[in-house]
Amino acid sequence: MADKLIYLDNNATTKVDEKVVEAMLPYFSEDYANPGGMYDFAKKVGHKLQDAREAVKEFMGANDQKEIYFTGCGSESANMAIRGVVNATPHKKHIITTKVEHPCVLNTYKDLEKQGHKVTYLGVDADGNLNFSELEAAILPETALVSLMAANNETGIIFPYEKVAEIVKQKNPETKVFVDAVQAAGKIKMDFKNTKVDFAGISGHKFHAPKGIGALYVKAGTPFVPLITGGHQERAKRAGTENTASIIGMGKAAELAIDALSDELTRVKKLRDKLERNILQNVFNARLNSSTGNRVPNTTNIGFEYIEGELILLYLNEHGICASSGSACTSGSLDPSHVLRAMGVPFTALHGSIRLSLSRYTTEEEIDYTCKVFPEIVEKINKLSPFQKELAELKSIKTHN
Amino acid sequence: MADKLIYLDNNATTKVDEKVVEAMLPYFSEDYANPGGMYDFAKKVGHKLQDAREAVKEFMGANDQKEIYFTGCGSESANMAIRGVVNATPHKKHIITTKVEHPCVLNTYKDLEKQGHKVTYLGVDADGNLNFSELEAAILPETALVSLMAANNETGIIFPYEKVAEIVKQKNPETKVFVDAVQAAGKIKMDFKNTKVDFAGISGHKFHAPKGIGALYVKAGTPFVPLITGGHQERAKRAGTENTASIIGMGKAAELAIDALSDELTRVKKLRDKLERNILQNVFNARLNSSTGNRVPNTTNIGFEYIEGELILLYLNEHGICASSGSACTSGSLDPSHVLRAMGVPFTALHGSIRLSLSRYTTEEEIDYTCKVFPEIVEKINKLSPFQKELAELKSIKTHN
Repeated sequence: MADKLIYLDNNATTKVDEKVVEAMLPYFSEDYANPGGMYDFAKKVGHKLQDAREAVKEFMGANDQKEIYFTGCGSESANMAIRGVVNATPHKKHIITTKVEHPCVLNTYKDLEKQGHKVTYLGVDADGNLNFSELEAAILPETALVSLMAANNETGIIFPYEKVAEIVKQKNPETKVFVDAVQAAGKIKMDFKNTKVDFAGISGHKFHAPKGIGALYVKAGTPFVPLITGGHQERAKRAGTENTASIIGMGKAAELAIDALSDELTRVKKLRDKLERNILQNVFNARLNSSTGNRVPNTTNIGFEYIEGELILLYLNEHGICASSGSACTSGSLDPSHVLRAMGVPFTALHGSIRLSLSRYTTEEEIDYTCKVFPEIVEKINKLSPFQKELAELKSIKTHN
Repeated sequence: MADKLIYLDNNATTKVDEKVVEAMLPYFSEDYANPGGMYDFAKKVGHKLQDAREAVKEFMGANDQKEIYFTGCGSESANMAIRGVVNATPHKKHIITTKVEHPCVLNTYKDLEKQGHKVTYLGVDADGNLNFSELEAAILPETALVSLMAANNETGIIFPYEKVAEIVKQKNPETKVFVDAVQAAGKIKMDFKNTKVDFAGISGHKFHAPKGIGALYVKAGTPFVPLITGGHQERAKRAGTENTASIIGMGKAAELAIDALSDELTRVKKLRDKLERNILQNVFNARLNSSTGNRVPNTTNIGFEYIEGELILLYLNEHGICASSGSACTSGSLDPSHVLRAMGVPFTALHGSIRLSLSRYTTEEEIDYTCKVFPEIVEKINKLSPFQKELAELKSIKTHN
């Protein structure tokens, strides 16, 4: 392994904040009670859970603590919302989603299709944006659910979910709206109480809480069928002894994320922009796989024409730089990104696309180092490409522009 | 709160072993990678997950690491097995279970009944034992699943699940067997490879791992439908970024539990027996809610006739002693225990029943103190009982025997 570690894969997972670990520690071996117990030792833990629920409520912009359900991960939050709606309205067999959702959502819809549901997959344009008229036209009386992400995990592009929810409720007030907010949490402000969104899922480990803890926002009064039945925990909507340490950790992470949001929107954004600008300027076969417009501040997705992304990752790894070619949930597969395909990214750049995602721990020195080595790495890989003629042409065009 | 803390509610949850916390700590803020990443920083974490899977494999007595799936809790493990079988065999609408299962299992069957499944609930005798002929007679060609616990959470009574699985497979080889092993893990040896059991669920926090992590054993080749769909994690059978720190913690806890089993079976059992013997000898209206026979070594369930269990818990709490009247998942409800009712515990003792559950952290001093205060507490509460005549009669009978 390289001596250096430059972690630019924060959309895959994040470093747990040391203040979060500190907040969690007492709940392993000291205040370890099951909060369901009748004794003071348990009630003390129960009160801390309330504080954590309050923090997550604030973080998501919910109206009431009762709108927050703790889950085991973002995928569980998504399954709980989607299957929760579908099972509550078994006579409504239509669902609308987008072609660029996270695999945890898309694979759930593939599963529901096998069970007889009809799913409409909305496309996006080259900048990753939805077409609202297409959405509106797709909403039918039998549409149980419209499901879309707040921010894309691969490109960082933000969907205007508030507006989508308005359009949905206008056309069919009975249709529920689920927002996969996993990649928005900690990167842009969430304020679900002022939207018509019914469900929104987040995952702790994307905003410096540990892995294995998530939350689902459910607007008060929205019916849904539980995914995990059993005990009375989470108001009988999600059984299982509360994951006390991680819930308390996620509460702390939520507080810290609210505080860090301005850093994310300024310093982190500036670093991301610097990194992106440098690579695009200094690598002739680089192209930005999105507009520079409405994106979360930490993410860039760059395509390198005529070369293989896996090879770039390998060379970056040798320099201690962690990056990815897309979702960790699809890595290992050689299929090019479904997100970039939906955006019409040309075939020449599709296999050579890299996601770089920063966090509040990313430093200017790390970005400067990455800016330095990136062109060198791509230069080396370009030499290995079987597309020498195409690369030479591209270089000549770029140099003359 | 009392100064002292004597924790006798280890069937509700346990103290996380400090060695487990130590094993987990690096995976929060140092080796925090998503194990799905392509880089060395991620692969390092992936290898530690393999070690943990191996430890849990050994702990459960599985044949192969591939038979172990990590989950978010014991309730998820149960739902994953039960719904996994039921959804894989939708034409088979019959399930057999017992009347004394944990709420996470019973409520799941209540939910399946609403969806058109027929569930046979097997009774138990006064000692909590199953009737094998009744079981055998209940198995039909359309029986999808037989589901029973390894050890009861309230009484500690062990079901001979190996024999049950034999009977099931003899009568209908297609019927699957699910064992809820949550209360067996760490208390008795598990060796599922040498049984005909298809599924077995455990929960980390019952054997000194943290809350929010569980595992499901699935015998190789047994088909089931996933509960949480999405990414490819856990061989595409349970989506969601791996809860790395907790999985590694549960691996360590599994190793420690294997080592601690002889202590559990000797020292802990001796302390439990001492506590039980003392209370039964020194409290005239105490009765053991089980035989002394086939039980896990850490649990006793004692009924106190003509008084309220909640009041005993309240007084114990004032002495810093944590105990419970049953499952934390049913606490808050005033219904008497469904387990004790199924065993035919007389009405006079049903509301005054207390579970005391020890662990490897329980000391002789703690048990001696509990033995000392218990009769004093019950004596006080007896004076508040509206059943003075009955108590006097009982005292006179007990004193003359």
